[in-house]
Amino acid sequence: MTDFRTERDLLGEKNVPKEAYYGIQTMRARENFPITGYPPHKELIKAFGYVKKAAAMANRDVGVLQKKIADAIIQASEEVISGKLDDHFIVDSIQGGAGTSFNMNANEVIANRAIEILGGQKGEYLKVSPNTHVNMAQSTNDAFPTAIHIACLHLSKGLISTLEQLIETIKEKEKEFDHVLKMGRTHLQDAVPIRLGQEFGAYRRVLTRDLVRIKRSVGHLYEINMGATAVGTGLNAKPEYIEKVPVYLAEITGFPLKKAEDLVDATQNTDAYTELSSALKIMAINLSKIANDLRLMSSGPRTGINEINLPPRQPGSSIMPGKVNPVMCEVINQISFQVIGNDHTISLASEAGQLELNVMEPVLVFNLLQSFSILQNGMDVFRKYAVEGITANIERCQEMVEHSVGIITAINPHVGYEVASRVAKEAIKTNRSVREICLERGILSEEELNEILDPMEMTNPGIAGARFIYG
Amino acid sequence: MTDFRTERDLLGEKNVPKEAYYGIQTMRARENFPITGYPPHKELIKAFGYVKKAAAMANRDVGVLQKKIADAIIQASEEVISGKLDDHFIVDSIQGGAGTSFNMNANEVIANRAIEILGGQKGEYLKVSPNTHVNMAQSTNDAFPTAIHIACLHLSKGLISTLEQLIETIKEKEKEFDHVLKMGRTHLQDAVPIRLGQEFGAYRRVLTRDLVRIKRSVGHLYEINMGATAVGTGLNAKPEYIEKVPVYLAEITGFPLKKAEDLVDATQNTDAYTELSSALKIMAINLSKIANDLRLMSSGPRTGINEINLPPRQPGSSIMPGKVNPVMCEVINQISFQVIGNDHTISLASEAGQLELNVMEPVLVFNLLQSFSILQNGMDVFRKYAVEGITANIERCQEMVEHSVGIITAINPHVGYEVASRVAKEAIKTNRSVREICLERGILSEEELNEILDPMEMTNPGIAGARFIYG
Amino acid sequence: MTDFRTERDLLGEKNVPKEAYYGIQTMRARENFPITGYPPHKELIKAFGYVKKAAAMANRDVGVLQKKIADAIIQASEEVISGKLDDHFIVDSIQGGAGTSFNMNANEVIANRAIEILGGQKGEYLKVSPNTHVNMAQSTNDAFPTAIHIACLHLSKGLISTLEQLIETIKEKEKEFDHVLKMGRTHLQDAVPIRLGQEFGAYRRVLTRDLVRIKRSVGHLYEINMGATAVGTGLNAKPEYIEKVPVYLAEITGFPLKKAEDLVDATQNTDAYTELSSALKIMAINLSKIANDLRLMSSGPRTGINEINLPPRQPGSSIMPGKVNPVMCEVINQISFQVIGNDHTISLASEAGQLELNVMEPVLVFNLLQSFSILQNGMDVFRKYAVEGITANIERCQEMVEHSVGIITAINPHVGYEVASRVAKEAIKTNRSVREICLERGILSEEELNEILDPMEMTNPGIAGARFIYG
Amino acid sequence: MTDFRTERDLLGEKNVPKEAYYGIQTMRARENFPITGYPPHKELIKAFGYVKKAAAMANRDVGVLQKKIADAIIQASEEVISGKLDDHFIVDSIQGGAGTSFNMNANEVIANRAIEILGGQKGEYLKVSPNTHVNMAQSTNDAFPTAIHIACLHLSKGLISTLEQLIETIKEKEKEFDHVLKMGRTHLQDAVPIRLGQEFGAYRRVLTRDLVRIKRSVGHLYEINMGATAVGTGLNAKPEYIEKVPVYLAEITGFPLKKAEDLVDATQNTDAYTELSSALKIMAINLSKIANDLRLMSSGPRTGINEINLPPRQPGSSIMPGKVNPVMCEVINQISFQVIGNDHTISLASEAGQLELNVMEPVLVFNLLQSFSILQNGMDVFRKYAVEGITANIERCQEMVEHSVGIITAINPHVGYEVASRVAKEAIKTNRSVREICLERGILSEEELNEILDPMEMTNPGIAGARFIYG
Repeated sequence: MTDFRTERDLLGEKNVPKEAYYGIQTMRARENFPITGYPPHKELIKAFGYVKKAAAMANRDVGVLQKKIADAIIQASEEVISGKLDDHFIVDSIQGGAGTSFNMNANEVIANRAIEILGGQKGEYLKVSPNTHVNMAQSTNDAFPTAIHIACLHLSKGLISTLEQLIETIKEKEKEFDHVLKMGRTHLQDAVPIRLGQEFGAYRRVLTRDLVRIKRSVGHLYEINMGATAVGTGLNAKPEYIEKVPVYLAEITGFPLKKAEDLVDATQNTDAYTELSSALKIMAINLSKIANDLRLMSSGPRTGINEINLPPRQPGSSIMPGKVNPVMCEVINQISFQVIGNDHTISLASEAGQLELNVMEPVLVFNLLQSFSILQNGMDVFRKYAVEGITANIERCQEMVEHSVGIITAINPHVGYEVASRVAKEAIKTNRSVREICLERGILSEEELNEILDPMEMTNPGIAGARFIYG
Repeated sequence: MTDFRTERDLLGEKNVPKEAYYGIQTMRARENFPITGYPPHKELIKAFGYVKKAAAMANRDVGVLQKKIADAIIQASEEVISGKLDDHFIVDSIQGGAGTSFNMNANEVIANRAIEILGGQKGEYLKVSPNTHVNMAQSTNDAFPTAIHIACLHLSKGLISTLEQLIETIKEKEKEFDHVLKMGRTHLQDAVPIRLGQEFGAYRRVLTRDLVRIKRSVGHLYEINMGATAVGTGLNAKPEYIEKVPVYLAEITGFPLKKAEDLVDATQNTDAYTELSSALKIMAINLSKIANDLRLMSSGPRTGINEINLPPRQPGSSIMPGKVNPVMCEVINQISFQVIGNDHTISLASEAGQLELNVMEPVLVFNLLQSFSILQNGMDVFRKYAVEGITANIERCQEMVEHSVGIITAINPHVGYEVASRVAKEAIKTNRSVREICLERGILSEEELNEILDPMEMTNPGIAGARFIYG
Repeated sequence: MTDFRTERDLLGEKNVPKEAYYGIQTMRARENFPITGYPPHKELIKAFGYVKKAAAMANRDVGVLQKKIADAIIQASEEVISGKLDDHFIVDSIQGGAGTSFNMNANEVIANRAIEILGGQKGEYLKVSPNTHVNMAQSTNDAFPTAIHIACLHLSKGLISTLEQLIETIKEKEKEFDHVLKMGRTHLQDAVPIRLGQEFGAYRRVLTRDLVRIKRSVGHLYEINMGATAVGTGLNAKPEYIEKVPVYLAEITGFPLKKAEDLVDATQNTDAYTELSSALKIMAINLSKIANDLRLMSSGPRTGINEINLPPRQPGSSIMPGKVNPVMCEVINQISFQVIGNDHTISLASEAGQLELNVMEPVLVFNLLQSFSILQNGMDVFRKYAVEGITANIERCQEMVEHSVGIITAINPHVGYEVASRVAKEAIKTNRSVREICLERGILSEEELNEILDPMEMTNPGIAGARFIYG
Repeated sequence: MTDFRTERDLLGEKNVPKEAYYGIQTMRARENFPITGYPPHKELIKAFGYVKKAAAMANRDVGVLQKKIADAIIQASEEVISGKLDDHFIVDSIQGGAGTSFNMNANEVIANRAIEILGGQKGEYLKVSPNTHVNMAQSTNDAFPTAIHIACLHLSKGLISTLEQLIETIKEKEKEFDHVLKMGRTHLQDAVPIRLGQEFGAYRRVLTRDLVRIKRSVGHLYEINMGATAVGTGLNAKPEYIEKVPVYLAEITGFPLKKAEDLVDATQNTDAYTELSSALKIMAINLSKIANDLRLMSSGPRTGINEINLPPRQPGSSIMPGKVNPVMCEVINQISFQVIGNDHTISLASEAGQLELNVMEPVLVFNLLQSFSILQNGMDVFRKYAVEGITANIERCQEMVEHSVGIITAINPHVGYEVASRVAKEAIKTNRSVREICLERGILSEEELNEILDPMEMTNPGIAGARFIYG
C-alpha cells in the first residue's frame, strides 16, 4: 500500500505518493493529460536539469538566492542531468499549458530532492520552494524553450555524426562503383548510360547539403531566451542574472549559448523550430528518394531491374520461402513519412502562436525531438545494414546498356535529331540494335559508329566522334 | 479613354468605369486584393446568379420586394447564369472578408443590370440597391456558402460522370487482361503469379469506392444555409422567405436542395467541405498509386519491367530520339499532389473558423473548386489517352513467371516452409529453377511438380496438388 | 547472466534469450529496427491473437492442421489476447517489411508457447512451426491487415462512446445556456446578437456529424482479407478455409467481420485507412475550432472577452501568481495538430503502395492507432475537466450586447442599408448608441425602436417590427 | 476560318494554326494536358528566352552552331524575353513529361520565329530545327531547371524588396508605439504588462530572420545545371560549351550564375526548391501569426479587445451596416494557408523523384512560383493598406493594464509566489485590485507598492523595488 503526503496549491489539496519527488502540480498535470502515455523525452528532462542548475548559480551570484539553497538546488539538478530521477518525470508529452507542467515537474522534483539534501522531508516547501526558489527569476516561458534548445542541441550532435558517417559510407560506394557502367533512366524509361558511382555521387552531394542545412539551423538554437521570464520583458529577473545565466549554461552544457538579442521576440516566435524541422523534412525527402532508387535498382531478383543487391537482413515473407525484401530502405521511407507528417504538426503548432506566447510548444517539441531520434536511428541502421553491403551486378548492368536504344542520343550531333528519331523508332519496333540499322541504312560508317557508340564515353561531357563533324 | 461614374459607400467615393456593371465595393476589393490574378471560378459566378434569382423570387412572394424590382433582378440574375456578364466578375479568388467581395460583386452587377432593365442608368441605386434589394434578407454568410454548394454540385456532376467512364474503361481492360498471367510483386520483389486482369480489377474496385465516397460527400451539399443571414439566427429574414428560398433554388438548379436543420451550425461549420476535399484526396491517392503501377509495369522498353505498353502520346525528350514517356500517368501523379496539397490548405482554412463564421472560405473554395476541375480534366485524358490504349506484352509476362523463384510458395503445404526456403535459397544462388532442384534432391516427384507448379492455377485460391497430401 | 538458445533461419543462426517466447526472426527485426522505441500498440498485439486463433480453428476444421497442434495454438493465442504475453512483443512500431516482423513476432511467440503446452521446449519448431503451423494458409499480407482492422474496431468502440458522451455533455450545456444572450461575432468583430446555447448547439451538431462519419468509416473495416495470402489470389489457402476464417473471427471478436469481395483489391489498397484517418482529421479540425472558441470566449479575466469561465484545472504559471489557463482546450488543439499531421503521414504511406502490396503499412497503422488513442483520451478529459464545468458570465454577455453597434442590422428593413450605414458610422465615431442617434435624427420613433431593437428577438428568424413596414 | 500548316514528328502528323509560332509538339501537349487552364508563369517564359539565347551564343562560340542560325535564334529569344510572344506559350502549368512540353514550346516558338527572321516560312524546320538547333546541346532536363532558377531569381527580387519595405514599415510602428503600455497576454489570459512597440519589435525581428532565410535559399539558385543534358553526364555537350553557357547566362540575366559542381546531382535533386519553399512556408507561418495578433488586438470595436485600429478598407458586410472587418489580415492568413499547402505539394513532388530525374517538376514549379507571387502581392497590400495605418487606442490599453491582476507578478520577489497567489486569487474572486488587498492585509506598504506596481517599469528587466529586499 502506498503512503501519501498532502500538498496544496492555489486550487486546493491533493495527495502525492510519499516517495515521489514530484508534487501537487505534477499530480494535477498527470490527471489532466493522460494523452499519449509517452513521458518527456530523456534529453528534455536532462536539459531541464541544466537550466535549473544554471539559474540557481546565477541567482546565487547576484545575491537573490541563499548559497545553501542554491547549492542544494545545484546538486539536485545534477542528479536530474545524470538521469537518475527520470522516473519522477511523469507528465505526458502532449499537454496543455505551454509546458508549465514540464517546468513544474522539474521544479518540484528538484525542490524535493534539494529539501532532502538539506535534511528535510519531501513536501517541506518552506525550505526550498519549487516556484520561489527553483524557478526563481524564471518562467515556463523562458525555462522551457531554453530546455528545448539544449535537448535539440544534444540530439543534433548524434544526428550530425550519424549523417556524416552515412555520407562517408556513400562516398566509399561512389568510388567502388565508379567504373560500373549502367543504364540511366528518366521517367523510368531507358535514357542514356551513366555510371553507378555517379549516382552514388549525387546521393552524397544532396546529403552533404542536408548536413549543411541542419548544422546551420541547429546554430540558431544557440540563442536562448533565459531571462525573458513571463513575456520577454525580464520582469523579476535582475539584469546581472540575465547576463550570467547563459554564460553558466554554456559552460555546463558545452554549447556556445548566448542571450537572444530580443527576449520578447525569442519568447513568442518559434521559427527556430520550424526552420530546424524544415531542414529535417528536406533531408527526409532526400533520404526517401534514395531509398526508392535503391529499391528500384534492387528489384527482382528475376523479374525486376536487378542492377544492385542489398544485403539480406531477414526472411522477407512468412509465406514465400526464400524471399528477401529491401526492409532497410522501406524503414527509411517510413521514417521519412513520419518526419514529413511531424513537420506538418510543427507548422500547425507554430502558426497557432498568439500574442506573447506560443502555447502549443509541447506538441511541437514532441514531434521535433521524435524527428531527430528516428532519423538518427534510421540512418544508423540504413548505413550499417543496407548501404555498406550493397554490391553491383556488373554484367547485368553492362548487358542492359548494350541492349538499349537510348545510346542513339550520341548520334544526334552527327545526323540531327530527326534522322536519329527514325532510327530509334525502327530499332524499338523491330527489336534490333541501333548500330545495325545505322549501318544497314548507310547513315554512319562502322568506324564512326565504333567511336560514337561507346557507352563509357557517354558518361562524360562531350560529343563522341566530334572529329567526324568538325574535323 | 475610359469614362467614369462616381459611386459612394460607407468609406467614401470612388470612380467606377462607366460601362462596368460592378460598382464601388467591387472596385475596393479589386484594389485590396491583387493576389492571384485568377478571377472567380465560372461555376461560382453562375451559382451566385441562381442564389440571387431565388432570393428575389422568395422576397417577392413574401411581399417585401416589389414585383417590378424583383422581376428585373431575376432577369439580371439569369444573365449572370448564362455567363454573359462573366467579365464583370473581377474580384480575386483569394480575398479577405469571408467572400463579401464575391457577394457584393454579384449584388452590384445584378443591381446595375436590373437598373438598366428598368430603364435607368448604372449607378442609380435608388432604383435597385445592391444591398437593400439584391441582397435583401441575405448576408454574405448565407449567400456565399450557398453559392459554393451549388458550384460544387455542378462540378461534381462532371467529375462523377468522368470517374464512371474511367471505371468502365478499366473494367474493359480487366476483362481483356483476364488471362494474362504475370508475376505478382510485393516490395518490388518477385512474389507469386497473378493475372493482369486481377490487377485491373483491384483498380476498378478502389475507384468504385471513391465514386461512392464522393457521391456521399456531395450529398451533404444539398443542405444549404440560405435564410441564416449574418450569423445563422435569420435576423431580417422572414420565416416564410426562409422556407421558400431553398424550394426555388432546388427548382431552378435541379438539385434537391433543402434548408439546413440548424442555420447557426450551417453558417459557422465547414465540415461539408473538408469531407468533400478528403474524398477527393483519397481518390487522388488511389489514382496516384495506379499511375505509379502503370509507370512501373511499362518501364523500359529494354531495361525495365516492360509488361505493358502505354499509348505513345508525344515525343518524350528534346534530346533523346525515339524516347516516349508515360506522360499521362505523370500528369495524374502531379494532379494528385496538387489535390493533396489543396486538401491541406482546406484543412488549415477550416480549422481557422472562429465563433459565428469561417472567414477563410475564399481560399478554401478556391482550392476545392480547383481540385474538382483538375481531377475531372485529368481523369478524362488519362482514360482516353492512357488507359484505353494499354496493351500487354503477354509473352514477356509469361516468361518472367516461368523464370521466377516465387512459384516455390506452392510447395509449402507439401514440404513445409523450412524445406522450401532451402530450395529457394539454392535456386537463387545457383540461378537454377525450383523444379530442377526439387527433382534432383528427390523432394517432390515429376508428377507432383507438374501439378503443383502450375502458375495459372496459383492465381486462384487453393492448395495445388492437395490430393498428394490429403489424399 | 542470460542464457541463450540458438535458432536458425534462411539467413543463418542467432542466439535468442532462453526464456523468450519470440524467436530468431523477432531478434533480427529488433536488430534491424531500433527506430522509435515504441512497442506495438497493445490492441494490435491482441488482434494478432484473434487472427491466429481463428486461422488455427479454420485450418483444423478443413483438415490441414492436426487437432492437437491446433488446440495448442488456440490456447497460446488466447494467452496473447489476454495480454499476458505482451512483454514478448518487442518489435518496433516503425519497421520495414510490411509488417512481417509483427506477424513473425506473433507466430514465434504463439509457436513457442504452443510447444510448451504440448510439453516441448521453446525452439523445438518441429513440434509447432511459426511458419508452417501458426502462419498456415496465411501471409503477413492478410494476417497483418486483418489484425489492423480488429485493433481499429476495438479502439473505435472506445472512441465512439467517448464522443457520444462529449456530445451529450455539450447538449446539456446547450440547454443550460439557451437563454444566455450574447454578442455574435464574425471576423472577430461585433456582429449581431446570438444565444450562447445556439453556439453550443452548433458544436453539438458538427460533432454529431463527426460521429456519423466515424461510424460509417469504421464500418468498412468489417471487410477483411484473410485468405488472400501473399497477393490476394489465395494461393495455399483452401477455399473452405477462406470461408470459415472470417466466420470464426467474427464469432470470437464480436464484430460482424466478413470476407472482402475481392481479396486482390483488399490486399493492395489502403483506402479504408485513409478514409478513417480523414474522418478523424475532420473531427480534429472541428474540435480545434471549438477549443479555440472556448479560449476566445474565456479570455481575460479582466482584459479579454470573458463571456464564459472554464473550470480551473491547474495553476497556470510558474511565475504569475493566480493565473489560470485554458489548458484543457490547449491540449485539444495540440491533439488536433497531431492527428492532422498523422493524417498526412498516413496519406504519404498510402500513396506509396506499389503493385500487389502497400509495404508502408507499419507507419500507417502506427499513426492511425495513435490518432484513435489520443483523440479518445483527449475528448474524455476535455469533457470532464472543461466542458462540464463551463459557466456563463450572463451579465457581462448582456452588457456587451447592449453596448454594441451591431444591433443596427435590425433597422435595415425599415430604412435601407444605406441609411443604416450612416447611423452606424456615426455611432462608432461618437461612441454613442444606435438608438440615440436614430431618435435624434428622427429616423425611427421610440415605439418603433423598442420593438425593432430587441436583442433577444434578433436571435430568431424574422424582421423585427415588420408590422411598421408591411402593416 | 483558321488556316493550318501540317507538321510531323516521331508519332505522325498534326495540323498547326498557320499563324502559330508553336508547332506540333506544343499541339500534342495542348491536347494531352487540358488540366488547370493556366498558361506558364510569365517569368518562366521569359526565363526560357534567356536560356535559349545563352545556349545559342555558347554553341556558336564553340563552333557547333552556324553564326547565321545562332543570330536568328538569339534575336527570337530576345523577343521571347520581351514578352511579345507570350501568347504562343500555350501549354498547361500542370503537365506530364518533366517539362518537355515547356521546353519544346519554347524551342518551337523560337525556331519558327528564327526561320522567319531568316526569311523562311513557319514550319520550315530544315532552316532552323527546334531540336537540332534551338535545343542544341541541351535537354529539357537542364534547360527547364535552369529556367526555373532564373524565374525564381527574378521573382525573389520583387519578394525581397517587398519584404524589406514591410519590415521597414513595422519598424516605424515599433518606434511610434514604443511608449504605448498595454497588457501582455499568454494563453489569451492576462499576463504582465508589455509595450505595443515591443510587440512590433518581435514582428520585425522574426520577419528579418525570414528575409535572411529567403536570401540564403535564393542563393542556392545561382548554381545551374546547363550542360547536364539528359542525365547530368553532359552527353552531346562540348566541355567548352558547358563552361561558356553559364557565363553568358550570368551576363544577360545579371545574376551571378555558375555551373553546378556536379551536374548529375544537380539534374536529379530538387532540394534547392524544397529549401526555398520551406523558407517561404516559414515566413507564411510567421505572417499568419502576426495577422492573427492584429485581428485579436483590433477585435471589437465594442465587444472585443480593441487595443488597436486597422484602417478601414471596405464595408465589411452586405447586411450589417457600419461593420468593418480586418480584411487585409484575413487575406494574409489565406495566402499563408495557400503557401503552406503549396509547400506540401512541393514536398510530395520532390519525394517522387526517381533515379536520374524528377519528372514531377512542372507541378513543383507551378506551386513555387505561385507562392512567390501571392506572398509578394499580399505583403505589399498588407503593408500599404493595413500596417501603415495602424493606430493605438492608448487609453484603452492603459486602462486594461491598470485593471489587471497580472501585475501581481512583480510582488513575487518580495513575498514569495505562494503568498502572491493567495492575493491574486482573492483579487479575482472579489473583483478588487491587487494593491488594495496587499494594503489591507499589510503584506506590503503603500511606499513599497508604489514602487513595485509600476507597470511601465515592468516592461523592462529587473526586480521592481529590489532595494526593499536587498537593501
